[in-house]
Amino acid sequence: MTKLKNDTLIRALLRQPTAYTPVWLMRQAGRYLPEYNQTRARAGSFLALCKNPDLATEVTLQPLARYPLDAAIVFSDILTIPDAMGLGLHFLEGEGPRFERPLREEWEIRNLQVPDPAEHLSYVLDTVRQARRALDGAVPLIGFSGSPFTLACYMIEGGGSSDFRAVKTLLYRRPELLHHILDVNCRAVTAYLNAQIEAGAQAVMLFDTWGGILGTAEFHEFSLRYLQRVVNGLTRERRGERIPNILFTKGGGGWLEEIAASGCDALGLDWTVDIGLARQRVGGRVALQGNLDPAVLLAGPDAIRAGVRSVLSAYGKGDGHVFNLGHGISQYTPPENVSVLVETVRDSSPAYH
Amino acid sequence: MTKLKNDTLIRALLRQPTAYTPVWLMRQAGRYLPEYNQTRARAGSFLALCKNPDLATEVTLQPLARYPLDAAIVFSDILTIPDAMGLGLHFLEGEGPRFERPLREEWEIRNLQVPDPAEHLSYVLDTVRQARRALDGAVPLIGFSGSPFTLACYMIEGGGSSDFRAVKTLLYRRPELLHHILDVNCRAVTAYLNAQIEAGAQAVMLFDTWGGILGTAEFHEFSLRYLQRVVNGLTRERRGERIPNILFTKGGGGWLEEIAASGCDALGLDWTVDIGLARQRVGGRVALQGNLDPAVLLAGPDAIRAGVRSVLSAYGKGDGHVFNLGHGISQYTPPENVSVLVETVRDSSPAYH
Repeated sequence: MTKLKNDTLIRALLRQPTAYTPVWLMRQAGRYLPEYNQTRARAGSFLALCKNPDLATEVTLQPLARYPLDAAIVFSDILTIPDAMGLGLHFLEGEGPRFERPLREEWEIRNLQVPDPAEHLSYVLDTVRQARRALDGAVPLIGFSGSPFTLACYMIEGGGSSDFRAVKTLLYRRPELLHHILDVNCRAVTAYLNAQIEAGAQAVMLFDTWGGILGTAEFHEFSLRYLQRVVNGLTRERRGERIPNILFTKGGGGWLEEIAASGCDALGLDWTVDIGLARQRVGGRVALQGNLDPAVLLAGPDAIRAGVRSVLSAYGKGDGHVFNLGHGISQYTPPENVSVLVETVRDSSPAYH
Repeated sequence: MTKLKNDTLIRALLRQPTAYTPVWLMRQAGRYLPEYNQTRARAGSFLALCKNPDLATEVTLQPLARYPLDAAIVFSDILTIPDAMGLGLHFLEGEGPRFERPLREEWEIRNLQVPDPAEHLSYVLDTVRQARRALDGAVPLIGFSGSPFTLACYMIEGGGSSDFRAVKTLLYRRPELLHHILDVNCRAVTAYLNAQIEAGAQAVMLFDTWGGILGTAEFHEFSLRYLQRVVNGLTRERRGERIPNILFTKGGGGWLEEIAASGCDALGLDWTVDIGLARQRVGGRVALQGNLDPAVLLAGPDAIRAGVRSVLSAYGKGDGHVFNLGHGISQYTPPENVSVLVETVRDSSPAYH
């Protein structure tokens, strides 16, 4: 495969010097882009799009055709693993993910198997390979997965939840069963991310979307412990290239020190955290990715420029910052506002390097 | 009015010595209690129940008949103020609150008026007076309101939201209009809480349910600033008795020092915060209220006892702790589990005093 022409993202994740702050956006290939909606319509559904490597590659590249971003992220979903385990992922229009067969009975939990990525998740690996070829080394390709705990939340609840009653009832009543699920998920996530790396992913990100619903002790026991195990099991170098990893616990602002101590390369930050204070707390140890409130992109150009500059200035001088939103981009974002964001990062960030 | 027989809550909120840790539960009069559901059925709806002082007094007292709690909280809703402003509060079965006439146009915002509590919220003041009489000094009665920012969220969104797109678009596009709403809300909340105090409330709590959706700078500008103004305007003493106040920003664990510096007497903590660390950060300045995960009450007696003891031990020796959940009690809580919680606080907490 071609060598990277723009390795700014990789260098920033490894806290090496860069000329400017690299930028990519969570969910950058998404419904705010008209071309994405057209491809999705051709695929028939979100999930059909994920499972079609040709079309998934097409949408992976779409935001790069519009904006000078410093990374592509493979188009996929955080819940491919439980789908490969046989839980039956589907999406209802206008709602979040749902599983047809959520974990209800102890025997279902005991029967869980780690899916072989080459067999059950080959469509993702095909997308990684095709996207790498199509990118031709322009920018790095990021692979990703949901975290063991976040997968468990969806597998137990059967979908999103306002109170996570089912997963918490299991946690407090039958912690050993939840640990069993997390152990299987942990091995599945590690194998899956390593398969993405083997297929060509040049950085990987773990989305711990629901770790923040836990108390401090429970976060350590049921989420962080398994994040650490995944990090320990990840391929760190492939063909002489370091493959950096990023951990993102939404709502995890209270535990940054402990997450940073997991051995990961970078932390994703949601927008509620002051990135300057976060850097003081953990900046010597890991790179930081984030963290503009995605809602700023619903405002006008002046507010976007001010928001971008405020994040850059809060992080301050020095390397180790990857500009991103603090959560996925909103489907209601006017595409031209993303141009304003990316241009402002490009124009304003060299002064900090 | 009768003098308090059990003033443990008031003393703890003022960080005065107590023999044990007082306990009450957010939403302690609620759907988990069969007697509550019966009274609500007689009233016809949740809102009809709020607006009927006889029945609201009845449900205010119901949890005290079952459990040896150290406080009653007036049965009401956090959104009574915007309802009194004419926005038309209603509740759809199984869903959260909705406003018939959310703020959409600038003229609607400019026309907002501070409601006179004696005129538009007399039903709440009547409930306070009746509940005080019925309590006959057994335990203190807590009054409450939503915070200026939390009220604004509902007034602008028209209900709950997953992304608070409308309020954040206003915040980033027309901050001066949001400040206008917050200024009106601030004056309304202050007058309303003072009217509750005048009617007999012996402590007051401000629920900043949605402050945690903001970035750090935005939290300070759009929520905390107005919390401070409310605190500054509150009646602190009535008929020689101190009236303590409690601020609770859900998801505000990153900003405890700043919230504690507002001049409030106590901070409510959600369950994601370690109460021992919170005490180290702010304990010399304010009392702390919380913070067991309400989901622990869905587990068995052993998990509940362990959870209660873990919160007591994390807070540690000394006064200034009010035991509570980190969020409102779940409607799925078996009532007998609340007995286990309250008994464990009573049995285990004297060792810390």
